[in-house]
Amino acid sequence: MVESSKLSEKESPKTKEEAKKEKLTLIVFSGDLDKALAAFILATTAASSGMDVSMFFTFWGLNVLKKNEGGIKSKGLMRKMLNFINRGGSKRLTLSKYNMMGMGTWMMKGLMKDVNIPSIDEFIAMSHKMGVKMIACTTSCGVMGVPEDSFRSEVEILAGAAYFLREARDADITLFI
Amino acid sequence: MVESSKLSEKESPKTKEEAKKEKLTLIVFSGDLDKALAAFILATTAASSGMDVSMFFTFWGLNVLKKNEGGIKSKGLMRKMLNFINRGGSKRLTLSKYNMMGMGTWMMKGLMKDVNIPSIDEFIAMSHKMGVKMIACTTSCGVMGVPEDSFRSEVEILAGAAYFLREARDADITLFI
Amino acid sequence: MVESSKLSEKESPKTKEEAKKEKLTLIVFSGDLDKALAAFILATTAASSGMDVSMFFTFWGLNVLKKNEGGIKSKGLMRKMLNFINRGGSKRLTLSKYNMMGMGTWMMKGLMKDVNIPSIDEFIAMSHKMGVKMIACTTSCGVMGVPEDSFRSEVEILAGAAYFLREARDADITLFI
Repeated sequence: MVESSKLSEKESPKTKEEAKKEKLTLIVFSGDLDKALAAFILATTAASSGMDVSMFFTFWGLNVLKKNEGGIKSKGLMRKMLNFINRGGSKRLTLSKYNMMGMGTWMMKGLMKDVNIPSIDEFIAMSHKMGVKMIACTTSCGVMGVPEDSFRSEVEILAGAAYFLREARDADITLFI
Repeated sequence: MVESSKLSEKESPKTKEEAKKEKLTLIVFSGDLDKALAAFILATTAASSGMDVSMFFTFWGLNVLKKNEGGIKSKGLMRKMLNFINRGGSKRLTLSKYNMMGMGTWMMKGLMKDVNIPSIDEFIAMSHKMGVKMIACTTSCGVMGVPEDSFRSEVEILAGAAYFLREARDADITLFI
Repeated sequence: MVESSKLSEKESPKTKEEAKKEKLTLIVFSGDLDKALAAFILATTAASSGMDVSMFFTFWGLNVLKKNEGGIKSKGLMRKMLNFINRGGSKRLTLSKYNMMGMGTWMMKGLMKDVNIPSIDEFIAMSHKMGVKMIACTTSCGVMGVPEDSFRSEVEILAGAAYFLREARDADITLFI
């Protein structure tokens, strides 16, 4: 009841062509496996129900989008060190809790497979096919020395905070993950 | 000034009966004592000012809603192990920082009592009485092997991500905690 | 296109004088250097594009606003201990990951300087000049024994959860960081 009245109220001053799709915008700040999983479950559920979805990856979240293969060529000793320690790639993400030197993460991946939850790698491909917009934050890239060719092909946009704010202003739901 | 003009604008096309209450929706992803506390302070403050409130508990956040007594009967060795390590229950939550093998958490509980802040256990009962809707995420239950009877009686709804998105689309404020 | 039609729809029932500025509200729960940095980058970017911005600091986030110099005079042994361990001050914030006993944090500060990102200290001063409203949460102050004179001069408001909810209800974007 509430939903239909809300929709009609919103749509009344517009024609069908102008009707705006509902929109979800996520900032993925975290590079933890569990938080990335939550982000992609929300993103794909929203996209499959017809919502517009954009995901803005920043700081540790850039790790989710880094290529799994090949090294990252940073400039300067400190950035080289950071990108050696903080290698990234969807297959290298670990749990925020109970990682237990990789054992907890390995177990969680098994549990996900067991109930047919896609891996993060599969979620990225799936999201891309569904039209989810994945954006890498240029400011974080600059600080951390992550060159633009570090990201997988599904990442089409590199942009800064102003771009995110425009996406979020337009959104019905915005979350910081 | 701003608030009243905003309200009148919103309400103008509706009659009194249709007037929508303002709404707060929280995703509680974290199972940390400090974050659960922040969530319940916001939820009860909003409810007491007349807002609709729904809290969607997922991943580690499920721990907040698990019964304090009795074991969880999971199927399969890995899920049995996970639910042994990650036991949960409102009384077993720990601080995200300075837990110091339980001492920090014990201290924080003392400090809360000292200034008459309810315990998480009391906050859940209070929220329930105030009409706050507490929802446990079925997807997380599936992955982690948490059976539906693991939750306390205040949890009336078990639902997935699509349910959360419907709650959030309708909300004036949505936070990921 | 979408943006302009949205704006005109919103503004139509108002005169120019009544036109509401867009607004960003942040809860800064975390006291980590990386999350504080994300918060201030968003806040200053939003303010410089003409948005109203308010930041509500709570729990560990209070550390961001504590004075860097001088001790905090708490009452009671447990609060004295907590404020000794959890000293705070914008210059003492550490990374949420790879702190490595301070080395990771020291490296990150170097990287920030290298690409001309302001320090948190500079961000607070800058935000204040840009009219960003910085609020310290009184409930957290009470629990943690942080007296009101612990904060730097840029903090003009001390308030509780109800104040935050009013700020957030009015906002176009609200994030929990």
